[in-house]
Amino acid sequence: MASINKATDPRRSILAVGSLAFDSIRTPAGKADRILGGSANYFSISASFFTNLKLVGIVGQDFPREHLDVLSKRGIDLEGLEIAKGETFHWVGEYGTDLNEAKTLSTCLNVFEHFNPKLPGNYVDSRYVFLGNIVPALQRSVYNQLKKPVLVALDSMNFWITGQRESLLETLKIVDLLTINEGEAYLLSEQSNILDAAKTIRKMGPKALIIKRGEYGALLFTDNGIFSAPALPLSTVKDPTGAGDTFAGGVMGYLAHEDAGEAIFKDDSILRRAVIYGSVMASFTVEDFGFTNLLRTTAKAAEERYQQFLKMTRF
Amino acid sequence: MASINKATDPRRSILAVGSLAFDSIRTPAGKADRILGGSANYFSISASFFTNLKLVGIVGQDFPREHLDVLSKRGIDLEGLEIAKGETFHWVGEYGTDLNEAKTLSTCLNVFEHFNPKLPGNYVDSRYVFLGNIVPALQRSVYNQLKKPVLVALDSMNFWITGQRESLLETLKIVDLLTINEGEAYLLSEQSNILDAAKTIRKMGPKALIIKRGEYGALLFTDNGIFSAPALPLSTVKDPTGAGDTFAGGVMGYLAHEDAGEAIFKDDSILRRAVIYGSVMASFTVEDFGFTNLLRTTAKAAEERYQQFLKMTRF
Repeated sequence: MASINKATDPRRSILAVGSLAFDSIRTPAGKADRILGGSANYFSISASFFTNLKLVGIVGQDFPREHLDVLSKRGIDLEGLEIAKGETFHWVGEYGTDLNEAKTLSTCLNVFEHFNPKLPGNYVDSRYVFLGNIVPALQRSVYNQLKKPVLVALDSMNFWITGQRESLLETLKIVDLLTINEGEAYLLSEQSNILDAAKTIRKMGPKALIIKRGEYGALLFTDNGIFSAPALPLSTVKDPTGAGDTFAGGVMGYLAHEDAGEAIFKDDSILRRAVIYGSVMASFTVEDFGFTNLLRTTAKAAEERYQQFLKMTRF
Repeated sequence: MASINKATDPRRSILAVGSLAFDSIRTPAGKADRILGGSANYFSISASFFTNLKLVGIVGQDFPREHLDVLSKRGIDLEGLEIAKGETFHWVGEYGTDLNEAKTLSTCLNVFEHFNPKLPGNYVDSRYVFLGNIVPALQRSVYNQLKKPVLVALDSMNFWITGQRESLLETLKIVDLLTINEGEAYLLSEQSNILDAAKTIRKMGPKALIIKRGEYGALLFTDNGIFSAPALPLSTVKDPTGAGDTFAGGVMGYLAHEDAGEAIFKDDSILRRAVIYGSVMASFTVEDFGFTNLLRTTAKAAEERYQQFLKMTRF
């Protein structure tokens, strides 16, 4: 049985850059106003079950101090978090019956608009790196400040694929592992078949590609072939916001925890388990609004869900 | 390694009732005019890799003799096939980019409209039974002519769920195993969550329920819990027509081949393998129009795909 006793070795910590935000969300299960969200938030809380983190991001002066304490207590280093004059990024969105797709109602970038990440001195040695969903040029800027990263993962979205395609393609060249939604994979690859899409995207840079399919699970593509992971059918799904970043947090968290470095590409067994841990962590997030449920879960509960995935897929 | 050497024991043969038809199909990959199709056709050819069959159905005098020879040569008994005065059932449909959903353009029932299945004497001892997608009352009529069936599987569709709901619910009471599309499962159960849907449907009769999700695979629900099976990602998908019946043919073919009878509900391991064989057979069907590709495939090729499913899901 795989273990997720949290790693404390600083060489196994993850540097994560992304957004911290207020989210206002409406889903068929209800609504939530100005709750905490953002890709870096979801990613870090999820990965913090596996290892410590160094956070790079920006918030406004309206961001609650208590939440920063929550992050710190989970081993998330906030030295790289800039608290800028002005308001925090605010996203307003809603979901219909198809919880796999969010409709953005408004995006106020606020302080995020002038974000220019500068890594503190003790961040530049980071070996495991997650470049969350931000402007592709800033993702590269973070990467360029690093001395010798071992594994670089990236998440992006349709907004950058269509709006800053060339810059995103430039960034993809430095990426080892890309996590992306199914619809975005088709958009990025300009293909209509999943195998063709994966082949095209892997030629853009990422040695490993994870295509996220919401409630249908995820597909991992590497030189070792394909791994198909289901999602856990849940009796309650309230809010899918942050599921993708929580997923990425579980994946990278486990990879950093194992510190397998380049070896993960020789044989995909560690990556396969990482995808399952990603799915486990995402399953907690969607059961309630925001990261309410993710914050109250335990390593033991995560391990139990991992076992459920095993039981659900054996034949 | 599981084996699919075809069973010849007559106690392991399957009685299958359903449609035999001409299909005119348009998909993004091309079109096909008046090719052979129908639920009983796809089901029988698929199941004939595993065991012999007894077919119950009706065709018009325009149905090609050569195709009946093809079926006979595969061990499909045609004594229960009525050749009636008039034309064979003709379905016209098309698929958009979303190959998971067919749009029916026209349905000419022709001789199928007056179908009243009567089982030949040597059919009534059949122990494995597939009630393909026809009028629910006729499904019951076939069942009522049987002496002592061991395992009754059923497939249905939205047309009967909405149009003959009460009759379908009556039929479901006699069913051991139901295979149904995801959208139809929501429609039948009047639920919006997959676990709730499965629970509701299983209370209607079927001890085992398989929810088919097209390119996302299938979910099996039994008293032993949930089994999640992926679909095989394919580089060529030309025509999804018949995939569901081919799937059911693989499932029932394997169950009859193993002749596990009621035991399949004590422990779901045989059912799990059956679901994978169903997915294997369906993967062949969709690679070309009609059952062109299913007819030219081999048991060896099926076994190789079964191994691909194993490799694709291990962690």
